[in-house]
Amino acid sequence: MRTFNILLLTLSILACQPPQALPSTPNPDLGTIAMKHQSDGKILIDAAMSDSAGFFRLAEMCETFGPRISGSDNLENAIDWILNEMEKDGLENVHGEHVMVPKWVRGNESAQMIAPWKKDLAMLGLGGSIGTPPSGITAEVMVVGSFDELIERGSEAKGKIVLFNVPFTNYGKTVQYRSRGAVAAAEVGAVASIIRSVGPFSMNTPHTGNSHYKDGVEKIPHAAITVEDAAMIGRMAKRGQSVTIKLNMEGHYEDDSPSRNVVAEIKGSVYPEEVIVMGGHIDSWDVGQGAMDDGGGCVAAWQAVKLMKDLGLRPKRTVRVVLWTNEENGLRGGNAYRDAHMESLDNHILAIESDAGVFKPSGFGFNGSESAFAMLQDIGTLLAPIESGIITKGGGGADIGPIMREGVPGMGLRVEGSKYFWYHHTNADTWDKLDQDEFNRCVATMAVMAYVVADMNERLPRD
Amino acid sequence: MRTFNILLLTLSILACQPPQALPSTPNPDLGTIAMKHQSDGKILIDAAMSDSAGFFRLAEMCETFGPRISGSDNLENAIDWILNEMEKDGLENVHGEHVMVPKWVRGNESAQMIAPWKKDLAMLGLGGSIGTPPSGITAEVMVVGSFDELIERGSEAKGKIVLFNVPFTNYGKTVQYRSRGAVAAAEVGAVASIIRSVGPFSMNTPHTGNSHYKDGVEKIPHAAITVEDAAMIGRMAKRGQSVTIKLNMEGHYEDDSPSRNVVAEIKGSVYPEEVIVMGGHIDSWDVGQGAMDDGGGCVAAWQAVKLMKDLGLRPKRTVRVVLWTNEENGLRGGNAYRDAHMESLDNHILAIESDAGVFKPSGFGFNGSESAFAMLQDIGTLLAPIESGIITKGGGGADIGPIMREGVPGMGLRVEGSKYFWYHHTNADTWDKLDQDEFNRCVATMAVMAYVVADMNERLPRD
Repeated sequence: MRTFNILLLTLSILACQPPQALPSTPNPDLGTIAMKHQSDGKILIDAAMSDSAGFFRLAEMCETFGPRISGSDNLENAIDWILNEMEKDGLENVHGEHVMVPKWVRGNESAQMIAPWKKDLAMLGLGGSIGTPPSGITAEVMVVGSFDELIERGSEAKGKIVLFNVPFTNYGKTVQYRSRGAVAAAEVGAVASIIRSVGPFSMNTPHTGNSHYKDGVEKIPHAAITVEDAAMIGRMAKRGQSVTIKLNMEGHYEDDSPSRNVVAEIKGSVYPEEVIVMGGHIDSWDVGQGAMDDGGGCVAAWQAVKLMKDLGLRPKRTVRVVLWTNEENGLRGGNAYRDAHMESLDNHILAIESDAGVFKPSGFGFNGSESAFAMLQDIGTLLAPIESGIITKGGGGADIGPIMREGVPGMGLRVEGSKYFWYHHTNADTWDKLDQDEFNRCVATMAVMAYVVADMNERLPRD
Repeated sequence: MRTFNILLLTLSILACQPPQALPSTPNPDLGTIAMKHQSDGKILIDAAMSDSAGFFRLAEMCETFGPRISGSDNLENAIDWILNEMEKDGLENVHGEHVMVPKWVRGNESAQMIAPWKKDLAMLGLGGSIGTPPSGITAEVMVVGSFDELIERGSEAKGKIVLFNVPFTNYGKTVQYRSRGAVAAAEVGAVASIIRSVGPFSMNTPHTGNSHYKDGVEKIPHAAITVEDAAMIGRMAKRGQSVTIKLNMEGHYEDDSPSRNVVAEIKGSVYPEEVIVMGGHIDSWDVGQGAMDDGGGCVAAWQAVKLMKDLGLRPKRTVRVVLWTNEENGLRGGNAYRDAHMESLDNHILAIESDAGVFKPSGFGFNGSESAFAMLQDIGTLLAPIESGIITKGGGGADIGPIMREGVPGMGLRVEGSKYFWYHHTNADTWDKLDQDEFNRCVATMAVMAYVVADMNERLPRD
């Protein structure tokens, strides 16, 4: 049945691109490497762009298992299913690689403004936060707009709930309040810390994400409320109104729990020991479906390799899909992959990560040698028909960071990012937010890049 | 202090529009009536467009009292505050007109998917719904895409929770499932009814709104879940998965409760008994802040009249702001206004309602005589500078409906509506969604229209 489907797929692809459609004369816009792989590149792009199986496989995963936080049954059930599906796809060397991951459990939680009027506040405890006492924490709110203001007005904070009402500028800046807000608030005597969710637009949609404590500083509960409510309480405070919030949280860590990095391959025909690694992280936060962050990156990488397999395109080097576990709150998967493969990292030719959503791709950001950069730009010319071949300097991904620090060249898929932080770490990160055409472009872009780097005569140089 | 502020406002307006800025020759683009009121029109537009007080007064109302459902303290507290502020503004005949309104109370509520995996579903019980038994209702879900499909598959519905997974097309069509879904589901033996929220875009944002039961058909609980969750459950059902939901709701009616229509005026200088009525509805649902629906319409109408007062523009006829109560779930305010003023309806020259949000206005939709329509189009030419002078046929508003049915010509403010149903009846209907410039355009548009109709020599003809 599967063979029949593959035959149909191959026939339908052949039907879409009669041989005469392939230029017989060199295309002057293509690079030297690209020219040699022009036919394979076109076949991969056409197959990806006419595909629907990958996009709906992502839906099935998201909607059958739910969000996939480290330590959860959802995550391990999804991994079991993926491994089984990858076997059915006929991929090679399909297996999970054991990783112990932290297990943070949210439990029940709520926030309520109880003065000057009563309002249930949509909220999410931040990853890693401790809970409140069972009776909750009820305190007046002190609103600040920055760490500096908190320090200046530090004497007012004792016994209060500090609200960091910081508008979103960019993720790197604004996420500081999520990461270290609890420490800063505790240092001036606050009993709990609340942030304005890290995002530019909200429809009463709180954002979770990781946070940290610091040795020697008291741990206090740390949560996010919506952009709307934080801004409102900020204006109420400016009007001179005293706002009181009651916070109930049960967040806590349980014992570390076994998880897995998912691995599957197309073995190289000539240099099977040389590996192009490509993937995303299979864990997510415990809200929404982790569709964009990063189920989409995972399934797009997987589908890129499945299309090679279905099309009978076996490159000279091995293309390995890796779906790392525990990116969100530990990076244990990325670290474990490095440790397990330390001896073969010299033969890791390139690592590719997709973890910025599967929106319309523009190309890749690359970290590696100048000579490799030039070759990747050459390969990128194959992607001009879908406008995704621009290679820029600087890039990678959290999961491939550990092997990049060991010298493996790395690149991250770059996508149109205007709405990424609308949905990031929220209950709105669901499959319906994605677009089939954009997803397919991501598949095509990763497929062509991975395939050509794996198949070209030259080994991508490190220096 | 107030006089001083008005002086400052007047000075600032004068500073913005030196006398030489007013054309001394007729503007050929203006209508005959418009030409006579060109100066006043420009003064009103300039004042409204440079204003910030109205927009921030809306914030203060929204954020001091919260959502204003009929029968709530929030609503009556907001009305008390408005009446007091209107007195401070120096408006005339400021008073509340007694109306008994229904009091539907949501209570606690929740929905959880409990199979095939566990997920808390963001939900809102629909206005008027009964509650579940205290232990909740747990049942398998039957997903349908239309009333027709429900009837065709009616034999499957017994003992199930029916989910109407109907994508948003337009409000009039899609809202049918909210209005009468519970009746249709009960008629085929369902134990509860759930709809996909009535809106085109969601970030895990459920929408409430009114719903109805029917004599002789069993009342069953009726709730809305998010677009995302409804669509997901729809796809799960198509994949053959059996979905079970547990619903807990406490919705119920309490005794009718006293409320008020808010009334304030600028008395006409020549024909004080002839009235132009203008306003919106001051009640809202019990979520968000009712900022767009319809706090914005109320405060814009109020601010339009306040600007006339501040500018010393007293028209020949009376301009009366009315903020109707209980539009959302009873229309008791609109009906009570008709009943209380029945004897003077012949002297109600025009009724203007804003209840489509305070986004960028394009003009008004009008219901009345041809000759009146032509005069209003003439007046609309004054609004060309802010692109809001287009008068179209057909329009009005729920609150002015009762007096329109008694013969009063009526018009509804028309605004750019692409996002109205993103926020409508949700926790995301908050002040921050509105834009000061767009709000001011609404104020200017209503101010010019009401003022000129009130001040022109001709009485707006009914036939």
